[in-house]
Amino acid sequence: MIKAYAAMEAGGALQPWEYDPGPLQANEVEVEVEHCGICHSDLSMLQNEWGVASYPLVAGHEAIGTIAALGDSVSNLALGDRVGLGWQSSYCKTCGYCMTGDHNLCTQAQRTIIGRHGAFANRVRADAASVVPLPSNLDARTAGPLFCAGITVFNPLVQFDISPGDRVGVVGIGGLGHLALKFCNAWGCEVVAFTSSESKTAEALELGAHRTLNSRDADSISSAAGSLDLILCTVSASLDWGLYLSTLRPKGRLHFVGAVMQPLQITIPQLMPGQLSVSSSVVGSPSTIAQMLEFAARHDIRAQTEHYSFGAINEALERLDSGEARYRIVLSH
Amino acid sequence: MIKAYAAMEAGGALQPWEYDPGPLQANEVEVEVEHCGICHSDLSMLQNEWGVASYPLVAGHEAIGTIAALGDSVSNLALGDRVGLGWQSSYCKTCGYCMTGDHNLCTQAQRTIIGRHGAFANRVRADAASVVPLPSNLDARTAGPLFCAGITVFNPLVQFDISPGDRVGVVGIGGLGHLALKFCNAWGCEVVAFTSSESKTAEALELGAHRTLNSRDADSISSAAGSLDLILCTVSASLDWGLYLSTLRPKGRLHFVGAVMQPLQITIPQLMPGQLSVSSSVVGSPSTIAQMLEFAARHDIRAQTEHYSFGAINEALERLDSGEARYRIVLSH
Repeated sequence: MIKAYAAMEAGGALQPWEYDPGPLQANEVEVEVEHCGICHSDLSMLQNEWGVASYPLVAGHEAIGTIAALGDSVSNLALGDRVGLGWQSSYCKTCGYCMTGDHNLCTQAQRTIIGRHGAFANRVRADAASVVPLPSNLDARTAGPLFCAGITVFNPLVQFDISPGDRVGVVGIGGLGHLALKFCNAWGCEVVAFTSSESKTAEALELGAHRTLNSRDADSISSAAGSLDLILCTVSASLDWGLYLSTLRPKGRLHFVGAVMQPLQITIPQLMPGQLSVSSSVVGSPSTIAQMLEFAARHDIRAQTEHYSFGAINEALERLDSGEARYRIVLSH
Repeated sequence: MIKAYAAMEAGGALQPWEYDPGPLQANEVEVEVEHCGICHSDLSMLQNEWGVASYPLVAGHEAIGTIAALGDSVSNLALGDRVGLGWQSSYCKTCGYCMTGDHNLCTQAQRTIIGRHGAFANRVRADAASVVPLPSNLDARTAGPLFCAGITVFNPLVQFDISPGDRVGVVGIGGLGHLALKFCNAWGCEVVAFTSSESKTAEALELGAHRTLNSRDADSISSAAGSLDLILCTVSASLDWGLYLSTLRPKGRLHFVGAVMQPLQITIPQLMPGQLSVSSSVVGSPSTIAQMLEFAARHDIRAQTEHYSFGAINEALERLDSGEARYRIVLSH
């Protein structure tokens, strides 16, 4: 039996709950969970914001732990290996995207907490292709958030061939944004932080920004006109995207990694003269996660975290919901 | 004196008009015009749709002719060279974009018919950097439209590293679209034409499409779900962009080369799972124009044209305005 913390209904408090995971599939591993980050999408699923939740629901998809059991056909991992598991926990491994290393774009990819039980538990199962070994010199206690927040902001640097000579803007300094500042700085780029929070201005500079602009002040944003190659937008609010597009250099890209729910108000005359692109992406492939972990270890990049025991999971969820966490919360056994 | 055909007011008929171009600048050439294509943006300027016209207005920006005079510092061209001139007729040649070959993105680029006099005339002047020699084996009579319509649809193939193994959709089969079908076919791609015109379905196949879909029928469009790497949208109408995005493969791109004036209704959930991009671009650099001309000559790609004498210029403009032209109109002296 796996001992988990589950919500029994939408928005309900989490409570201890046990389930029998059945026989381990040949391609799966079972991970003994040591730590698990909490992500806003855990809250969204627990509250059934997307209408795809079923209960009892076990959230948690930023897990760090050790391999406790191996399916019969697993050859890439060994018992005791310390690994991480993120948003995706299974791939078809045979479609065109899996076959070319873009597993995160596999249309059959399974999400760790949708139709499966996640890592707010003592153990979690996943396809062996979806768990990635942790470099030995990476701090396990703060590594969980790299597997969702981290890869979400790191992946665009790889996908779009961002060069150390480029200038990157990061909109929103939170769970994703603070890691984006760290990664982009270590990547060699000039980094501009856009935030509406005065209290985060000094923090943004410490996290890796070379300068900060007020994300809700048109004059402040306009001071960066024509200067950026990439904007990573980590917020879910609807901002004046035309204004942000005006801060891009020709061939620049406005890239969304946050779930902005309102349609984008963007016009062709905003895009055409500068040959600009607007795009979005979701997490990254296991091979890109491995690249990110090696890069994070080399540059000592770690999430800035607050820590709770699993026993205090409801308190931790409330803290996340308050928006006050700096910047990511990790649960530990 | 240069003998031109000018509009004296917005929407007025063109009439013979002479002007003194003054001394030839050191960096300029004067081209003896042989042929000039007519583009929809000529109509837009003549009717002052964009509010930037001044009168008398001489339109015409798809010119083919021979070098009749050289400025003192011009070294890349010789008297008598046959050349073409398109939408842009001057660059700063020193900004970061000019210095890296992206002259078309130069913010100081001058447009041939905005604040200058164009090629509906016996002669036209331009920066020597903006006119491009015609390969001797390219048909001069039909080459004019390549310099605006042609480069507009060819440039994205270069900019976005489109591979012969890719699948490209072309929305709208007109002045731009029919050249896009020819270029994409010769580029080696699978080509899908989207058109709402039944009469153009058979023509699209002859022009280079491997198959056609109805651009205004949701079921027809949906039959291409998840299949295209690039969509070149050449129309100015506002279509169901979410539906078109659904025809892209992961990492695909919806690229606008037509002037859609309504804001794009696009949402992040349409872009995120497949890591899709939306973008737009304007013409191409002189070096890309040269590459296009060489490619067109190699593959015998020429615009499908209707021909008028300059004396019948008003009749030709009416024909273009009717939308009945197949597919581009060229004026000749």
